[in-house]
Amino acid sequence: MVASNEGLQLFLDIIGVFVFALSGALVGVRKGLDMIGIAVLAWIAGLGGGMLRDVFLGDVPPVGISDWRLLVTALTAGLFVFATHHQVMAAVSDMPRVRREIMSQSVRTLDAAGLAIFSVGGALKAVAFGADPLACVLIGVITACGGGVLRDVLAGQVPELLRRELYAVPALIGSTIVVVSFELGHLSEWVVWASVMLVFVIRMVAVILDLNAPTALRTGDPR
Amino acid sequence: MVASNEGLQLFLDIIGVFVFALSGALVGVRKGLDMIGIAVLAWIAGLGGGMLRDVFLGDVPPVGISDWRLLVTALTAGLFVFATHHQVMAAVSDMPRVRREIMSQSVRTLDAAGLAIFSVGGALKAVAFGADPLACVLIGVITACGGGVLRDVLAGQVPELLRRELYAVPALIGSTIVVVSFELGHLSEWVVWASVMLVFVIRMVAVILDLNAPTALRTGDPR
Amino acid sequence: MVASNEGLQLFLDIIGVFVFALSGALVGVRKGLDMIGIAVLAWIAGLGGGMLRDVFLGDVPPVGISDWRLLVTALTAGLFVFATHHQVMAAVSDMPRVRREIMSQSVRTLDAAGLAIFSVGGALKAVAFGADPLACVLIGVITACGGGVLRDVLAGQVPELLRRELYAVPALIGSTIVVVSFELGHLSEWVVWASVMLVFVIRMVAVILDLNAPTALRTGDPR
Repeated sequence: MVASNEGLQLFLDIIGVFVFALSGALVGVRKGLDMIGIAVLAWIAGLGGGMLRDVFLGDVPPVGISDWRLLVTALTAGLFVFATHHQVMAAVSDMPRVRREIMSQSVRTLDAAGLAIFSVGGALKAVAFGADPLACVLIGVITACGGGVLRDVLAGQVPELLRRELYAVPALIGSTIVVVSFELGHLSEWVVWASVMLVFVIRMVAVILDLNAPTALRTGDPR
Repeated sequence: MVASNEGLQLFLDIIGVFVFALSGALVGVRKGLDMIGIAVLAWIAGLGGGMLRDVFLGDVPPVGISDWRLLVTALTAGLFVFATHHQVMAAVSDMPRVRREIMSQSVRTLDAAGLAIFSVGGALKAVAFGADPLACVLIGVITACGGGVLRDVLAGQVPELLRRELYAVPALIGSTIVVVSFELGHLSEWVVWASVMLVFVIRMVAVILDLNAPTALRTGDPR
Repeated sequence: MVASNEGLQLFLDIIGVFVFALSGALVGVRKGLDMIGIAVLAWIAGLGGGMLRDVFLGDVPPVGISDWRLLVTALTAGLFVFATHHQVMAAVSDMPRVRREIMSQSVRTLDAAGLAIFSVGGALKAVAFGADPLACVLIGVITACGGGVLRDVLAGQVPELLRRELYAVPALIGSTIVVVSFELGHLSEWVVWASVMLVFVIRMVAVILDLNAPTALRTGDPR
């Protein structure tokens, strides 16, 4: 069964946390925050989605404050960004446009990996806790998107989730597949991996083709 | 007893969720968000108050992610606003001032109905969970006001609750009546209905007379 | 043992809540909010950290909505600020620079006291609930810093925690001492008091020397 493979799950969790924590730290750098602020944003971006998941499942204290491996991962990402942002920024501004494009694409690729891992992993945990199918699906989506939303709210910007081309949809597809497979008794490691890959691919296609959900006509009052 | 009338409670819940979800979707349209962003704001506005209530009562996963009827209600409201906002906006801008005023008043009437249903309903659920009286009263207020606060925080605006003429007070009155009646052993369906009506009427009077709580003198630093 | 001294704990809690509630009310005055808005910000600043702590410990409903003594304390602070802000503002603007400086220093001294009480008190409660050591430490920090973060998010400003000179670090030191002492079997009333004093002193030194954590270079995109 899936849950038995704990080493693998941990490995995936660490990748997901690291990637999202990087995104939080980068937002902190962009806002000119100090080291503590950057560490807090790395923590909330990397572990906030999992904390919402755990509160909604009643599994408290959430892993986001109790699992030292994930905490160390998030803080490492924060420190890494803090330590290197000067050089990276300088390097980026000197870069030819093409390499800058490549770098920005790498970040989005990592982010897509985090989205895939967290949506599937969140749904798996919810299923293991015996939550209703619908709740499991949404907990997968919240696990994947919650950290980014909390990061943006703390940083004082409208969450990217609300503004950005198809982000929640791949997460929704991935967690739905996990939950439906479980309900049908077909949840295998194979299904889990296929779901992770599928979310990743859909998200990357959306990024590459710059796919967007239809937008409302903006009407007055920009803030 | 009150809790027995589940069909009626569901009916009320659906009205409350629909009305608040409309408000969330309208904020999304005003911000020029895409379909996903509008759906997220409709969900959080319609179900966020109930999710805070459930987390504070330890009733997890909260109904806001597990009850498909309420979720469908919120998403329907979001889709409805998204599908019609173009026509509605055009119609509104062509409207004579009087009809526009009528329309805005209708929205506030619906919102007052949601406020009444959620404050009384939230207090009822807290009482059924055996929470302390004071906690029950505040859970009623949080159920009624929490969705709007979360909506505004996600949308990047200072919550209307903090800015707007008497909004929390009618909710406080309604949930207090429910809890006091329960403590006195007089909680009947009649009391519930009277409380809902009372909250609605007080809120409408505040809207119509444009009653405001006293305001602090603004002093420097607008942000 | 520590927990036996309930009268003292309550006394400390009330001081902490009062001080932080004052900070919330002052933010509300600066934003020109009405009485309700100021009361809400006083409540969330004074009791928000404790509510996060209780949700993370599964101790619901949180004391922030169920303990009338703490609620009355927060509301009293809110009303006090609302009732006196006119005179205070006038007095401050007439004050010679020196006295104004003294006043601002008093506020920060009170705030440092709140930080000390809440970080140590939050860790103590987590320890009493049998949470993992790491979780206990972080729950102490969240208890101390959470109310200010929620206050700032609701008020539409980037949390001071992210912007301000060493704020989270003293809280982290205080809750760490409590948790380590507990793990080593040396948690005594003496340790608790020493921790509170230490947090207070570190924070005041940071305030007086204007110590700051290193800051990221701000790079473009101010929002």
